[in-house]
Amino acid sequence: MDLDKKQLEQQYAQIKGMGLYLDMSRGRPGPDVVDLVNEMLTLPANNYKTSNNIDCRNYGILDGIPEIKKLFAPMLECSEEELIIGGNSSLQLMYDTIVRAMLLGTGGGSLPWHSQKPKFLCPVPGYDRHFAICESLSIEMINIPTDENGPNMDMVEELVASDKSIKGIWCVPMYANPTGIVYSDETVRRMAKLKPAADDFRIFWDNAYCIHHLTDNPPVLLNILDECKKAGNPDMVYVFASTSKISFPGGGIAMLGASKTNADYIRKHMGCQTIGSDKLNQLRHVQFFKDYDGVKAHMELIRKVLQPKFEAVLDVLSSELNSELGEWHVPQGGYFISFNGKPGTAKRIVELCKEAGVVLTGAGATFPYLNDPEDRNIRIAPTFPTVEELRQAMEIFCISVKLATI
Amino acid sequence: MDLDKKQLEQQYAQIKGMGLYLDMSRGRPGPDVVDLVNEMLTLPANNYKTSNNIDCRNYGILDGIPEIKKLFAPMLECSEEELIIGGNSSLQLMYDTIVRAMLLGTGGGSLPWHSQKPKFLCPVPGYDRHFAICESLSIEMINIPTDENGPNMDMVEELVASDKSIKGIWCVPMYANPTGIVYSDETVRRMAKLKPAADDFRIFWDNAYCIHHLTDNPPVLLNILDECKKAGNPDMVYVFASTSKISFPGGGIAMLGASKTNADYIRKHMGCQTIGSDKLNQLRHVQFFKDYDGVKAHMELIRKVLQPKFEAVLDVLSSELNSELGEWHVPQGGYFISFNGKPGTAKRIVELCKEAGVVLTGAGATFPYLNDPEDRNIRIAPTFPTVEELRQAMEIFCISVKLATI
Repeated sequence: MDLDKKQLEQQYAQIKGMGLYLDMSRGRPGPDVVDLVNEMLTLPANNYKTSNNIDCRNYGILDGIPEIKKLFAPMLECSEEELIIGGNSSLQLMYDTIVRAMLLGTGGGSLPWHSQKPKFLCPVPGYDRHFAICESLSIEMINIPTDENGPNMDMVEELVASDKSIKGIWCVPMYANPTGIVYSDETVRRMAKLKPAADDFRIFWDNAYCIHHLTDNPPVLLNILDECKKAGNPDMVYVFASTSKISFPGGGIAMLGASKTNADYIRKHMGCQTIGSDKLNQLRHVQFFKDYDGVKAHMELIRKVLQPKFEAVLDVLSSELNSELGEWHVPQGGYFISFNGKPGTAKRIVELCKEAGVVLTGAGATFPYLNDPEDRNIRIAPTFPTVEELRQAMEIFCISVKLATI
Repeated sequence: MDLDKKQLEQQYAQIKGMGLYLDMSRGRPGPDVVDLVNEMLTLPANNYKTSNNIDCRNYGILDGIPEIKKLFAPMLECSEEELIIGGNSSLQLMYDTIVRAMLLGTGGGSLPWHSQKPKFLCPVPGYDRHFAICESLSIEMINIPTDENGPNMDMVEELVASDKSIKGIWCVPMYANPTGIVYSDETVRRMAKLKPAADDFRIFWDNAYCIHHLTDNPPVLLNILDECKKAGNPDMVYVFASTSKISFPGGGIAMLGASKTNADYIRKHMGCQTIGSDKLNQLRHVQFFKDYDGVKAHMELIRKVLQPKFEAVLDVLSSELNSELGEWHVPQGGYFISFNGKPGTAKRIVELCKEAGVVLTGAGATFPYLNDPEDRNIRIAPTFPTVEELRQAMEIFCISVKLATI
């Protein structure tokens, strides 16, 4: 691609003068998506009891009313007794799960992690908030490269088998944050068959985007809970999900699926931590979605809003850039597009964008310790702005890529 | 008091045959109290933005929208920057605060508690869920006797000054759970002036019942945050409260007040734990109560429901029992009446009540490790049943006291 530096600089200066402000930094839905659940804002009105007559306005029920468990068990692909309904944040469920392991172990007589210099494997690029949990708790992170099938499993197998202090791995198996890839069947099976040196090793399976499809025939992810059972590792995985990007971000329902042994252990300690999550919000969700088909139907409405946004981003990328300037994966779902520029360009691209009024996730944020060793990965979050804003932002992005590369 | 054993046994057998079921085990409001906030069940409807245009349906705001801080800062008697709005459970805020100290210390370079064999002082009788947190985290508990002025401060002062491993004390300073007493000014001042050997010693000031008055001229509790500042111990206290018994138990708003130094430290780590609490529920509360005067006016409505319940319990107690059989404090607010029988009778009284269909909090529950050394304290929770049910339950209670005593 022929790049005329002078011309690019002129274009860039012109845009900079426009005083734009476009935010593509975080994976959050736009008002056009949350509008779709506005009806929930007047629920549960007078219907504040569950079908078995529990008054959701009062104390009681630690891990979710029966209706909400029935509604979401199919999404987590677990039984209702394997399901724990949390508060409004799956991040908090993950944090609490790690903190519990740090202080009390994972159950069955295992020792607290804090005394064992715990380490986590971190497939990269990955989700910055996962890494922030580890960093804040002084859990050492080890980068694991990923490709279109998921993490490099040779490396994962070797590391967990040889190092007892490796206690966990972060996985976003479906439409990974930020790459958008879906773990292959082989990856899931190898994950379930791991033979860790640490018998309290846990897979943190953050299935945040499990039903956020953008295609008619979405890929199917193998059920990790089933695969772990088949492999004789039933307790090796915790599955997380939430309705943060289905209903209200920050006002939705978080959940955790795990073997009954794990779930019972968590319930036991949760009982000291809380009197249980907000049942009125659980009921609100049940009344709005009715059943799991209702959830899936709602995801189709969300897809109608999001698909044109992803298409706009991909369209500008493919018309403005080529493989000499960078590469990106076309995701079949999820919330992000991951861009890899030439090594050493990411920070500069983000900086150029910022100066021109386009806020991106900080370069490096998709790696532990905010350190992208090649300085090339940028996470693009196309869900919040309008299609028009996205086109404008991506034009600026592409000019910035070109300027940073030449 | 003349007690005819045979006659009592006959009365008891007759009641037992009635197959009653009356629950006075937990401090929870009845439907008559939660009915008073039913309007909240249709809020926030279309008004989902804050006054400064934050969309409460979406991500953002870690520690509470400005409106909810303004609403409740007067209740915690702190500034808005000293206030952190949590989720639906102040118990969870307390648990998380202790867990944070266990793993990360209390800030300012202090060491994690987990490596220091931490101990807590526990004024007794006290709140079982406080003690359960300590027990679940292997924090050793030391009983501190209390009287009508609060904990025995001679003992508290001596212990904290001499033992570096004493890291905290549990206090319910206003209408204490279960005794109903209010800490005297002297107690609060001595608490604020403590000179602990451990510089990371913290007072856990659970002000759960701070505005739950049952009299026209309620006692005034000194502001512990102010007193700690005056005493040069600004960071020594965390204050907790919630709307669990003002709006919806399990669906309310929990909060924490602390010095700005403490609050900033908590916010820093909270930022790794959660994306923030449910802002829609915060807005719902703001829209319902409007301002702090609205909260206080609402408490008057609640008082109208609760006062006859407390009166019914106290009426039966004073007409059926005398000081040879037991003693109780007449609380001016709060949620409980604490009964002290003759030593060695509490377990038997609870057992007799249970067999006759009256469920009380387990004997011993008001002490660490469920161990009431004298086996005499019983917590009576009069808020859930109707007045008629309470009278019936208390008749059974008094017969059980008499039977257990003779």
